[in-house]
Amino acid sequence: MALSGPENTRNCSCPNTLQCLRALPEKLWSKLVEVTKIAKKFGQDHPRRLIHSFKVGVALVMISTLHHFRPSFYAFGDNIMWAVLTVVVVLEFSVGATLGKGLNRMLATFLAGALGVGTHCLANLSGHKGEAVLTPIFIFLIAGTVTLMRFSPRFKVRYDYGMIIFILTFCLVSLSDEKESEMLEIAHERLLTIIIGSCIAVMVCICICPVWAGEDLHNEIAGNMEKLANFFEGFSDEYFNNSDTTQTVQDKSFMHRYKSVLSSKSSEETMAVLARWEPCHGKFKFHHPWKQYLKIGNQTRVCAYKIEALSSYLLHSKQNPHEVQSMIQESCTIISSECGKTLKESSLGVRHMTKSSMPNQHVANAKNAVESLKSVLRTNPWEGADYVDIIAVAAVASLLIDVVDCTEKICEAIEELASLARFVPSQLLHQGTVQPISKRDDSIHVITIDEITPRLYE
Amino acid sequence: MALSGPENTRNCSCPNTLQCLRALPEKLWSKLVEVTKIAKKFGQDHPRRLIHSFKVGVALVMISTLHHFRPSFYAFGDNIMWAVLTVVVVLEFSVGATLGKGLNRMLATFLAGALGVGTHCLANLSGHKGEAVLTPIFIFLIAGTVTLMRFSPRFKVRYDYGMIIFILTFCLVSLSDEKESEMLEIAHERLLTIIIGSCIAVMVCICICPVWAGEDLHNEIAGNMEKLANFFEGFSDEYFNNSDTTQTVQDKSFMHRYKSVLSSKSSEETMAVLARWEPCHGKFKFHHPWKQYLKIGNQTRVCAYKIEALSSYLLHSKQNPHEVQSMIQESCTIISSECGKTLKESSLGVRHMTKSSMPNQHVANAKNAVESLKSVLRTNPWEGADYVDIIAVAAVASLLIDVVDCTEKICEAIEELASLARFVPSQLLHQGTVQPISKRDDSIHVITIDEITPRLYE
Repeated sequence: MALSGPENTRNCSCPNTLQCLRALPEKLWSKLVEVTKIAKKFGQDHPRRLIHSFKVGVALVMISTLHHFRPSFYAFGDNIMWAVLTVVVVLEFSVGATLGKGLNRMLATFLAGALGVGTHCLANLSGHKGEAVLTPIFIFLIAGTVTLMRFSPRFKVRYDYGMIIFILTFCLVSLSDEKESEMLEIAHERLLTIIIGSCIAVMVCICICPVWAGEDLHNEIAGNMEKLANFFEGFSDEYFNNSDTTQTVQDKSFMHRYKSVLSSKSSEETMAVLARWEPCHGKFKFHHPWKQYLKIGNQTRVCAYKIEALSSYLLHSKQNPHEVQSMIQESCTIISSECGKTLKESSLGVRHMTKSSMPNQHVANAKNAVESLKSVLRTNPWEGADYVDIIAVAAVASLLIDVVDCTEKICEAIEELASLARFVPSQLLHQGTVQPISKRDDSIHVITIDEITPRLYE
Repeated sequence: MALSGPENTRNCSCPNTLQCLRALPEKLWSKLVEVTKIAKKFGQDHPRRLIHSFKVGVALVMISTLHHFRPSFYAFGDNIMWAVLTVVVVLEFSVGATLGKGLNRMLATFLAGALGVGTHCLANLSGHKGEAVLTPIFIFLIAGTVTLMRFSPRFKVRYDYGMIIFILTFCLVSLSDEKESEMLEIAHERLLTIIIGSCIAVMVCICICPVWAGEDLHNEIAGNMEKLANFFEGFSDEYFNNSDTTQTVQDKSFMHRYKSVLSSKSSEETMAVLARWEPCHGKFKFHHPWKQYLKIGNQTRVCAYKIEALSSYLLHSKQNPHEVQSMIQESCTIISSECGKTLKESSLGVRHMTKSSMPNQHVANAKNAVESLKSVLRTNPWEGADYVDIIAVAAVASLLIDVVDCTEKICEAIEELASLARFVPSQLLHQGTVQPISKRDDSIHVITIDEITPRLYE
């Protein structure tokens, strides 16, 4: 049924235009099918975006219905504009952003309106000519000062939108021609319309599949740790050439997921600011320690920088003689896999808000492996080998030792979060048994985890 | 004269209220002096922010003066609002942002107005009841579709603001009660007011000390390379413990400047988008290759990640035995200093838009030093030493070798920029002489630069 592009062109180049016209409905149908398919795929890939678009439509339809039935607060025909303006600008993707903008808008309109009426009265007292001089002076001073305040990082993150609305409202009130009694009435009506607009936006945002910035931040922090864990889990296979050569590049894409962590700082900071506007929801209380997530995020990024340095050695790993690599293979494999497990366990702990001693045990295992690596090195295993070959392998060993410290710091930051946000202990969730493996120095212990709650991993 | 805080409190707690009142003018004066001092300091620290605030004030005063004299285009009293709204929202810190928002606003208002009038007519044809049904349907479809388009990364970066204005204007026009003939007139007036507002904003933004996003991006990219150069210049002194121990922590702050480069990605990308809106200015033509700056920025960040890994070895450098470090000291010092010189030269080249072969010569020197380091390593210099001590030092050597590649890639990206943006050759600016130094293998050449144009460094 559906016509492909080239066929379409052929159809249109036919000499018979009637034939062309006949093919039109068919072509339109195929186009419609195509668009529907794209929309369906988009909806499956990004359901939240589709829902947000639906929400914007719903909120505006609500406003237009209100407008149609004209309740008493639409006495001023012009005021519908302010409700529409408010809904379009205030309704954002996340609840935090919507609430923040709504509150900013309402508060700023109220304060600027009051100040505007005050200065308007003051200017009026000085006659028509005085007003013509005083009004611009007031506007210049207030707009300039508030613009300066917008640069203050402390205000900017939470009140930037409010300050723009403050300047806007103050100017509009100052420049309005109405008499004071009328002005107060208009101001009252306008504030009410803005409150109605904000309330509709907030209501739609919260009631229809809400997107919580806090929850997103929570999941992103946990997800980032998982990305690093993926790298560590694949690293030793990749580096020591044990990886299956039939694996395609796509299969190894999990090794590169950490790259998104390198530049995650600004998005995490934005989400933390928005999360602070949000009321309690799901697992999160009102005063959830969102700032602590940023600390974890910073430590995760420090670890990601080390991974970036490590990953460059993967490219040339095959150039290093196998006998040089193999000396440190066992310990490095354990360090890498234990770091991976630490991060995976920590990520799960954060995701499900449970306290667990498992990450610390994995860190202890990794540290034991570091000691074991050092004791291997003390036997001077590369005696006689070329140091040009050694240094790249030594760098990997050294970076891996460093990574253990990073992982430990991430664990510490998470423990702090766990105590601030009162995570529940997870003795029931995992059952750990410590299994010593026979090794050269018997100092490495590997912990086997029996998952008795597989639903956690869904 | 000025009273400090505690004295103020003491003054007010005095039993004699009259005395307190007498002190009031003095206190107010001291407060005013304090505020003036803070403002003066702020102005010295951030002159551009102060100027921007001044510009916002001026633009709004211009609008209010226009309003006072009421030219013919202010026939509709309400329309002043649109000019004020436009100026407040459109006038941004940089010319690129202002132009982008202004053009977005004008175009979106025009298109949405036309579409709104069209759908309004269509809805009108179906009678009062039909209109009540059709208008919300149109609003839902258009607002939903445009909101979906806002998620497209391709549109988002340049037209996000325009799409918001499109939804807003379309809804306002659709919901307006005016008859079609009146509507067209209002639409015409409103578009004119928005054009006037945008023009005032753009004019003020360009005419009073303009801030060009492109120039900022250009300087930031050059500045970031300089920050990395600072690190390399200080690294060997710091690592091999030659640094003056009397130097305070503050003196070494230049070693940590590279940290800001780690998270510079998003700000660079924003500036590149804004720069594309800007007309030719100063040294920059209209189609200046702003995207190439992002490539350089990415390469600079990759280098910064390596530096982050290197810097962690600075902390423990004193734990490494001196005899292990000293083996690689000479070559590593040269690599580090040559990388520093490469980056400094490249930064200067970008800053002054000149092509120079000096960075490549420094890269060649660094590569020679790498070869020399390798030949030192081939003599197995650490024979018999403990490998636990060796690996940290080997990691530094290996990372430094890696850094040379990074620096070379930065140079390549800059060369590409130089050919795209037609940088002028700088034979006249530098006079380079190649001085071979007597070395073990005579393979290292050091280039001395005689600056004949010291003004470049101003």
